[in-house]
Amino acid sequence: MDLSDLEADAKAKLEATFYDYIAGGAEDERTLADNQDAWDRMRLRPRVLRDVTTIDTSTTMLGARVSSPVAIAPMAMQHRASPDGPVATARAAQATGALFCMGLFGAGSAAQVAAVPGNAPRWLQVYVMADRARSVEAIARSAEQGYGAIVITVDVARQGNRRRDARNRWTFLQSDGQVEDPNELFDHALTFDDIAWFAERTPIPLVVKGVARGDDAKACVDAGAAGVVVSNHGGRQLDGALATADALADVVAGVDGRAEVYVDGGIRRGQHVVKALAMGAQAVFVGRPVMWGLVVADQKGVEGVMRGFQDEVERAMALCGATRVDEIDASLLAEPGWNRPRG
Amino acid sequence: MDLSDLEADAKAKLEATFYDYIAGGAEDERTLADNQDAWDRMRLRPRVLRDVTTIDTSTTMLGARVSSPVAIAPMAMQHRASPDGPVATARAAQATGALFCMGLFGAGSAAQVAAVPGNAPRWLQVYVMADRARSVEAIARSAEQGYGAIVITVDVARQGNRRRDARNRWTFLQSDGQVEDPNELFDHALTFDDIAWFAERTPIPLVVKGVARGDDAKACVDAGAAGVVVSNHGGRQLDGALATADALADVVAGVDGRAEVYVDGGIRRGQHVVKALAMGAQAVFVGRPVMWGLVVADQKGVEGVMRGFQDEVERAMALCGATRVDEIDASLLAEPGWNRPRG
Amino acid sequence: MDLSDLEADAKAKLEATFYDYIAGGAEDERTLADNQDAWDRMRLRPRVLRDVTTIDTSTTMLGARVSSPVAIAPMAMQHRASPDGPVATARAAQATGALFCMGLFGAGSAAQVAAVPGNAPRWLQVYVMADRARSVEAIARSAEQGYGAIVITVDVARQGNRRRDARNRWTFLQSDGQVEDPNELFDHALTFDDIAWFAERTPIPLVVKGVARGDDAKACVDAGAAGVVVSNHGGRQLDGALATADALADVVAGVDGRAEVYVDGGIRRGQHVVKALAMGAQAVFVGRPVMWGLVVADQKGVEGVMRGFQDEVERAMALCGATRVDEIDASLLAEPGWNRPRG
Amino acid sequence: MDLSDLEADAKAKLEATFYDYIAGGAEDERTLADNQDAWDRMRLRPRVLRDVTTIDTSTTMLGARVSSPVAIAPMAMQHRASPDGPVATARAAQATGALFCMGLFGAGSAAQVAAVPGNAPRWLQVYVMADRARSVEAIARSAEQGYGAIVITVDVARQGNRRRDARNRWTFLQSDGQVEDPNELFDHALTFDDIAWFAERTPIPLVVKGVARGDDAKACVDAGAAGVVVSNHGGRQLDGALATADALADVVAGVDGRAEVYVDGGIRRGQHVVKALAMGAQAVFVGRPVMWGLVVADQKGVEGVMRGFQDEVERAMALCGATRVDEIDASLLAEPGWNRPRG
Repeated sequence: MDLSDLEADAKAKLEATFYDYIAGGAEDERTLADNQDAWDRMRLRPRVLRDVTTIDTSTTMLGARVSSPVAIAPMAMQHRASPDGPVATARAAQATGALFCMGLFGAGSAAQVAAVPGNAPRWLQVYVMADRARSVEAIARSAEQGYGAIVITVDVARQGNRRRDARNRWTFLQSDGQVEDPNELFDHALTFDDIAWFAERTPIPLVVKGVARGDDAKACVDAGAAGVVVSNHGGRQLDGALATADALADVVAGVDGRAEVYVDGGIRRGQHVVKALAMGAQAVFVGRPVMWGLVVADQKGVEGVMRGFQDEVERAMALCGATRVDEIDASLLAEPGWNRPRG
Repeated sequence: MDLSDLEADAKAKLEATFYDYIAGGAEDERTLADNQDAWDRMRLRPRVLRDVTTIDTSTTMLGARVSSPVAIAPMAMQHRASPDGPVATARAAQATGALFCMGLFGAGSAAQVAAVPGNAPRWLQVYVMADRARSVEAIARSAEQGYGAIVITVDVARQGNRRRDARNRWTFLQSDGQVEDPNELFDHALTFDDIAWFAERTPIPLVVKGVARGDDAKACVDAGAAGVVVSNHGGRQLDGALATADALADVVAGVDGRAEVYVDGGIRRGQHVVKALAMGAQAVFVGRPVMWGLVVADQKGVEGVMRGFQDEVERAMALCGATRVDEIDASLLAEPGWNRPRG
Repeated sequence: MDLSDLEADAKAKLEATFYDYIAGGAEDERTLADNQDAWDRMRLRPRVLRDVTTIDTSTTMLGARVSSPVAIAPMAMQHRASPDGPVATARAAQATGALFCMGLFGAGSAAQVAAVPGNAPRWLQVYVMADRARSVEAIARSAEQGYGAIVITVDVARQGNRRRDARNRWTFLQSDGQVEDPNELFDHALTFDDIAWFAERTPIPLVVKGVARGDDAKACVDAGAAGVVVSNHGGRQLDGALATADALADVVAGVDGRAEVYVDGGIRRGQHVVKALAMGAQAVFVGRPVMWGLVVADQKGVEGVMRGFQDEVERAMALCGATRVDEIDASLLAEPGWNRPRG
Repeated sequence: MDLSDLEADAKAKLEATFYDYIAGGAEDERTLADNQDAWDRMRLRPRVLRDVTTIDTSTTMLGARVSSPVAIAPMAMQHRASPDGPVATARAAQATGALFCMGLFGAGSAAQVAAVPGNAPRWLQVYVMADRARSVEAIARSAEQGYGAIVITVDVARQGNRRRDARNRWTFLQSDGQVEDPNELFDHALTFDDIAWFAERTPIPLVVKGVARGDDAKACVDAGAAGVVVSNHGGRQLDGALATADALADVVAGVDGRAEVYVDGGIRRGQHVVKALAMGAQAVFVGRPVMWGLVVADQKGVEGVMRGFQDEVERAMALCGATRVDEIDASLLAEPGWNRPRG
């Protein structure tokens, strides 16, 4: 099944306002659309005549082995997509050997997710709350629970201007029924110094999510981050921000090999994953497709999505003549002007 | 409410020919469309991890403090959009701390607008009439009335070829019921020397509106202009003229810091404002959205539009990591080729 | 009335196959569409604050004064558009001071057209026939009849692959009712040497029509041509050929001031004319719009079209700050990248 | 008849799943669409005033004379398009003097095709099977049967992810009714060394089909290939691969004149052929159009398609001023920026 079919099935099952909340983006949804277009605009230059009998799609993320360079992004509202959403997602991740980055916000089941058996790494994503104690507490618990890294999301200095949600009068309901205003929850004073402060206090590696520039990425690494996620929050925050595919090369250059670079946003095909790795990403994250899988068929739905990505990555690697992910290099990408003779 | 919804509401209230007069542009309306597209084509490179707890959107325009870099452009026919159009607009400007550039043509209530209490600056826009005495007289009065600057519009050497108006047999009715032909009203012999002549005779700063080139902008400054507005009259004059967003950088370079540069045309989102400032504009002007606000809900409608812009500017600045407008720099803009590694 | 409205009116009056013959292009009509798009893709950088009280749109074509740089292109089948087509067109040209380039093929009334009184220049367009005597004879007569130049069309080495005509089983009916196959009529052996041969035998200047390259244009001038028309036969010959607007600069460079350069194809607005002149054209030709005018209202229809162009050229020049056609220079054109600061 | 009409006729005759199998591409069919768009994006710069009375469209492919640079690509399932598909195609190829590259897979009638009388060259395309004996055997027979070259297709390291076929539950039925899985049939360990191994054992020239990069093409030639076909398998394998038109120049540069370069994918017009040759291709292959011709009218249908291409190539060459294929040079192609004056 294709992801577009899966999304249609999920949409049919969901109340419209919740579908809009997941599917939508900020303002005119240009960055949302551009995220996906940008991967499709790029063209691959496949290699042939390599022995691709066996393709190893596995790689590592901060040293931990994963079955493919496709990880599950943190998502809000998983518990609303499926009664046991985060745990079902965690089980699917383990079943497919994928890294799952659990999103803490509004879900409250980090311990349950941590208890799902399996060897695939799991990370914990946190927002730094205006009430910083909540974040510190969550981080402290996470290492003990077996999480391999803490991911701090930093592109939420304000809640994005999401027009669908405004029209739908969408509100963030906590599990206890309380409505929270994200603009009041998050710490808007967060700086690179705070990243350093957290990095010192965190016994496991720290990853910064929501970076779009090489200079910011460099500053994150200087502050102790072991990884950065090129992300614009799925086009949900600053409409007009450049597509993550278009920001990736700059971030890779800024990090300069001193940390791992990941990317999310609009990745819907195995060939998109190959493009991301060819630009220097260590791995990619996918979010909405996992949510649609969860809505349609719980754990099995998520497994189907992840296996679909793994199949497509395997095929795209084979058709590009790459047997291991470290053979995916920049020469696989056609640059503008590639259609003219080279000197 | 979004501006597109607001425009739809206004359209529903207005007679079609008047709506067309406001909404339309010259000939095939390519410059009209390109004005808006050009802002959307640009991409932002947001900064993260700055302390954006407090965002100060205020700035100055010719030294006077305004609450945000979004000012109200001069418009014809405000009195037809609402019985008390210019005054209602002026009150809304004061209520929101925005600069209002009153348009003199066909309205005749500069004194009433001047009498609206408040500290936000107001400017007076004039056309230089074939009968120059009318302009000199208006300028003379303006400083006494409290206007902070005179804006001379210079892109009306001919009336634009507006096909909607021709089809609608639209005519310019003065308040006294007389029809005026703009082509006969305006002085078509106006040159940079005349700008110098006016600048000498004007006790308040002079701004030239309707500039699209760096060399022309430099000549305006040489003639004594304190500011220039990059404008193509909202796409209503020369179809095929480049979008104001595409002309801005050249004008900024031509002015070279010796005067302030403003821009109008197609600005519909806070992120557009950030882009304009990142290219070197001191502030932007918005026209049609204000007109739609006026049509739909008089003063309150205009206030809603201006507050909407201020909210979006605040959010876009926060999401770009800029706490003051002087932190909006050129590095926030993604150039073509940004998706390739930098040296 | 706009040209698109005029075309719709003409279409309503014509039998569909004849409309298709005039309106259509070769194969997939990509060059046909691109001709028009290319003018619209360009952007103007208007000048302001020039004294444009009086605009002189007149210019010369091979030394003869014309009221504007818009001339009437040679067209086949004018007699079928209107009983007295060529003469009505000639009268309209004289009434509006425009150059009319009479097309000889299939019309046979060069003498009648020559007899229309007036001072505006007229040119005669010929195809070099396989039976060369027919062409020599026509050329010999033309100078005596008062034609100011001979235009040899050279982009008809084969009849274009016009799919509409094939579907419509369109045939070329001569005035005597005989069907002619253009592929048999024209001389396919024509070379630059033949141009030289004709230039020596022609008492009036020779213009070569259908040139798309600088090197070919230079060779035409070397062979004695006094002018070249950048043309792809209105997109009716080689589909995939570059738009005339995109070929113009190369031809201007190839000619290097030694002859006059004209251009046709897709010019529908006064601003397109300004763009052509800014790139170095001496004048432009329009064809299909004149045909639609002829169909709708005979001589008056053609006059309306030509006056419409003259009005639009006047307005576009005024809005660009150009009072004479020699003030239309290359700086009026925005190049790609114009939206970035200049050094 | 145009190819788009022909395809519509074929579609009407075929069961939908078979039509989809032929017409479709991999995943989102972007490469499929881009193959065709890429030829149309290019623009020609036609030459005029050459003696084009007689156009010789003939050329050679590996030394053998063909009537035009348009050859018939290998296709699977010809026997399903028409009872006697491959033989009918071979007869049409001989009737029109075109090279036919017989596809061995799933057809089994190489001997019958070889027995069709005529002087036009025929090539045999093979996949290297996991059971390599099958390929060696086929190759050994082919020279004796009169095939002029062996074409090894190398872009099938995995079966493409064809969504239409998945939805249609399309399976590969062999002539004996057995279903084969292409992923198990083909040898996925094939390398350049194997190409060298085959080249040594093949008494006739070896051509490698499915190359998209200059470095790979060079390696093929180093391994003994006499020719390479720039191909992405008609967009059926790796979606996101660059269009063949965009890969061609790089491959031509990589081969550097040491072998012949051919190209397939999206070629639907004679002007596309001229563009391919202008970029350095020796000839082009067309596949789907031949299949449509076969479906609609067997041998006569294929002849119609090939004659249509030959007519269009002849016309396009004449309109470009090229009388022989070696006069089709790179200057016929407009590069980006061609619309600006040259130095």
